[in-house]
Amino acid sequence: MQRANANRTRRPDRDAGRAPMRRPGGVGSAPPRAARHAGGVHPLVDSRENERLFRYEDGVKQAFDRITPVLKQISAYQHETDFEQRAQQTARQELGFELPPEILADAWICQLDMKRLFAWCVFETYRRYCDAFFSDDPLVADSAEDFAAFLQGCGFHTLDISPCADGRLAHVIRYVLRLPQDHVRRKSYAGATFDVEDSIQKWVEVEMLRYREGRPNLADAPTRYLKVVVYHFSSVDPEHQGCAAHGSDTRLAASEGLKRLEGFREAIENSFCCGASIDLLLIGMDTDTDSIRVHMPDGQGRIDLDTHIDSLGLFGETANLAPADAQAAIERSVAAAVDDAADGMQRFVARLLHNNLSQIAYVRTFHGSHYADIGHAERFIGAGIGFEEVQLRNLMYFAYLNTVEEATKDMDVGIKIFSGLNAAHGLPIPVVVRFDYHGQVPGARERAVERCRHVAAAVAARYAKVFERGLLHVMQVVRDCTGSGPIEVVDCSVMANEFAGAH
Amino acid sequence: MQRANANRTRRPDRDAGRAPMRRPGGVGSAPPRAARHAGGVHPLVDSRENERLFRYEDGVKQAFDRITPVLKQISAYQHETDFEQRAQQTARQELGFELPPEILADAWICQLDMKRLFAWCVFETYRRYCDAFFSDDPLVADSAEDFAAFLQGCGFHTLDISPCADGRLAHVIRYVLRLPQDHVRRKSYAGATFDVEDSIQKWVEVEMLRYREGRPNLADAPTRYLKVVVYHFSSVDPEHQGCAAHGSDTRLAASEGLKRLEGFREAIENSFCCGASIDLLLIGMDTDTDSIRVHMPDGQGRIDLDTHIDSLGLFGETANLAPADAQAAIERSVAAAVDDAADGMQRFVARLLHNNLSQIAYVRTFHGSHYADIGHAERFIGAGIGFEEVQLRNLMYFAYLNTVEEATKDMDVGIKIFSGLNAAHGLPIPVVVRFDYHGQVPGARERAVERCRHVAAAVAARYAKVFERGLLHVMQVVRDCTGSGPIEVVDCSVMANEFAGAH
Repeated sequence: MQRANANRTRRPDRDAGRAPMRRPGGVGSAPPRAARHAGGVHPLVDSRENERLFRYEDGVKQAFDRITPVLKQISAYQHETDFEQRAQQTARQELGFELPPEILADAWICQLDMKRLFAWCVFETYRRYCDAFFSDDPLVADSAEDFAAFLQGCGFHTLDISPCADGRLAHVIRYVLRLPQDHVRRKSYAGATFDVEDSIQKWVEVEMLRYREGRPNLADAPTRYLKVVVYHFSSVDPEHQGCAAHGSDTRLAASEGLKRLEGFREAIENSFCCGASIDLLLIGMDTDTDSIRVHMPDGQGRIDLDTHIDSLGLFGETANLAPADAQAAIERSVAAAVDDAADGMQRFVARLLHNNLSQIAYVRTFHGSHYADIGHAERFIGAGIGFEEVQLRNLMYFAYLNTVEEATKDMDVGIKIFSGLNAAHGLPIPVVVRFDYHGQVPGARERAVERCRHVAAAVAARYAKVFERGLLHVMQVVRDCTGSGPIEVVDCSVMANEFAGAH
Repeated sequence: MQRANANRTRRPDRDAGRAPMRRPGGVGSAPPRAARHAGGVHPLVDSRENERLFRYEDGVKQAFDRITPVLKQISAYQHETDFEQRAQQTARQELGFELPPEILADAWICQLDMKRLFAWCVFETYRRYCDAFFSDDPLVADSAEDFAAFLQGCGFHTLDISPCADGRLAHVIRYVLRLPQDHVRRKSYAGATFDVEDSIQKWVEVEMLRYREGRPNLADAPTRYLKVVVYHFSSVDPEHQGCAAHGSDTRLAASEGLKRLEGFREAIENSFCCGASIDLLLIGMDTDTDSIRVHMPDGQGRIDLDTHIDSLGLFGETANLAPADAQAAIERSVAAAVDDAADGMQRFVARLLHNNLSQIAYVRTFHGSHYADIGHAERFIGAGIGFEEVQLRNLMYFAYLNTVEEATKDMDVGIKIFSGLNAAHGLPIPVVVRFDYHGQVPGARERAVERCRHVAAAVAARYAKVFERGLLHVMQVVRDCTGSGPIEVVDCSVMANEFAGAH
């Protein structure tokens, strides 16, 4: 396997990390007034939060990336007499879990079925990662409760973000923008060209809840639904590592995102009376440095593709200022960006820019001038609806779908990427098919299970050649998204046996 | 072609039809007080409306059923010198439209491509039928405006009916229940097991509009959303001609329908606060006589599978009474059916039973003791979302879908039915792929066109064997469902030519 794990990340400077510092306010609270960082990165950067976020990201990725070397080690002694015992010991020590005895037990007959074992380990690691996410809440933001109030103070009752489905943007909410993921609606689409009809439905639901239940605020509060699109580009290799859905054409990615935003607003204005409208925001993200450029709407709500505020520039300009001066500089630059921008929108954008400075420092501290993996390096494919636990960069290739038929392009791209990453080296492509459901709706779980079954069958049929060679494995998972319960594995091709039937 | 058109319908008794009579009030108005029918059918039957509805149904079906004999006639002289001219003359006279010259022009080379010609004629007839429906409003109900008031008077602001998708129930709204089709939400599903999530979405939208725009009434009006399931059975051949989705097991069809209804109510009650709930009604329909059995909820909203009011029995019991006495008898039987049924529900059910008496008479007058075509005899398959013009029995086999993948079972059944009806005789299976869209939503038309393209490709791929032999043709159609405009044909396999490319 050619996946270079070495140099993927650089260890944090432990001394700098341990330097005593005031804990700044988190997401959504009053602007953090961080003490000047010991390492002198930037006055507004939250280094302790960076440290915490890195520990989590690194822990998760290490868990996935340890699989290959451990299995390699186990492979070496597969024909020795105490193989099973030794293999389990190694697995327990290195991976933290035992391997399925039935796979190990058959190794003597021919050889260890490494493809099945690898897929099993990836799926098990995913399951453990999910369990930890839902039981430990590792990405909880300190001031998540304040965020709703901050958002409403800016004039928005709902924040609905559609990033590109590219795995390099999977961390956009919690890392890049430092927002509490459970207060933001995220719905990813290839090329960030979101489904307008789906967004209208969400708007309708939000309005209903405001009127009927006063959630999140009363319908007569002067707030709006804010829809954000995050497109992306690559500063290191703009011609090849930009958005695949738009042929790495940054301007096209931005203009298509804007077109959807304007279409959504027009749809709301045309479909509902009484001055119904929404607010829009367009953000570009550099997937190499995690910096952002914000296209802020002017007083008339118009967004200009050529006008944006660049967080990387702000980072440099404010790096040597006192915290209050740096904050003031951000606010000045937001105020000067466009004509008559609404005060609330300005406050919101200033907060995003401020938050993003920490992420810029995160990349610099742990990865250098840019990420080492500027291209695709996902660990598995996720297909279906759900995956709220995936808030980490380049962990999962996401195909948001109800059926493979409507998302063949997305799936084909995913399979192609993983053909290079895994199948070319003889390792299977791990696909998690997942459908979340609302547990309070009778029959919803059964329908989610049925949907899993359909989609898994469609994946197996569409990629029959690799599937039949054991180079593609599918785990089927459902989850009740109303609670904080774990995922439920309903089927998995790894444990299927054509002679014994599925176990 | 073995489709027996003869004896499919019996001509109305023209004299009885022409007998002078008072025009009774239509759907939703005060109960019609019809004069005793000249033919003595039943005091509450609206014979003039029956006559009008029959003329329309018969006209549409004749248009489809003329295609085969006309093409047979044309086939006979396909090698004569004045063939093209004669064929066009016959087509104009008998079908009302000309045939595509390019298909006729090539007949001399080998022989007339009858498969393409047949499919073209079915599609053209469908197009003309749609155009007439949207421009002439042939099924308009006199008192449609009163219906909303009547419904609200009964305690309901929305009437949402899910019948089985079987073509023998396609006329349930306008014919069997005599309701104005544009005041009823119809969403058909195989086995009437409707999508609970989709219904929740509709409920949310309705609540939003009541709160926000006061449509159809204000949110504080004491009315509820009424969800109705119509399952079906066959009195003539109960073991074979019942609901295919439930293996012709009537009790299973009823209990599965009830389970969905109760699941929907539970979902609303669990998902929303402030006493949110809905009302339910379960109706069984005999597809041979079009009579209904209504399972009315009691005072606690409970529906009993074994308790129902049977319109066929009521028809017999009240046939010789004076109109007022017949009406009173219906009301008594409704009042006695269950304990403490709500007054409004009783009024509504009495109206449905009253309305259905006309349909029972319709079948008796024009078809005899039951329909001749008690099984499937659809003219084409409709796949997608839309088809509001299809309010006629056994005209179209409907597969409600966004993708073929999620509806393979429905599509397979449809293709199987038409393999017997058409392909077995060498005639192609005509499939209309249709997606309606909301014209006020930017990009919605393009997305509908794209969806057509996907589904048409999936149909061609799934049934490649018949498709490649020219035994399956697909026309792609979209329509802006916000207006009363016509359908728009966006592509059609009939005019595709592998050498010339699509025309």
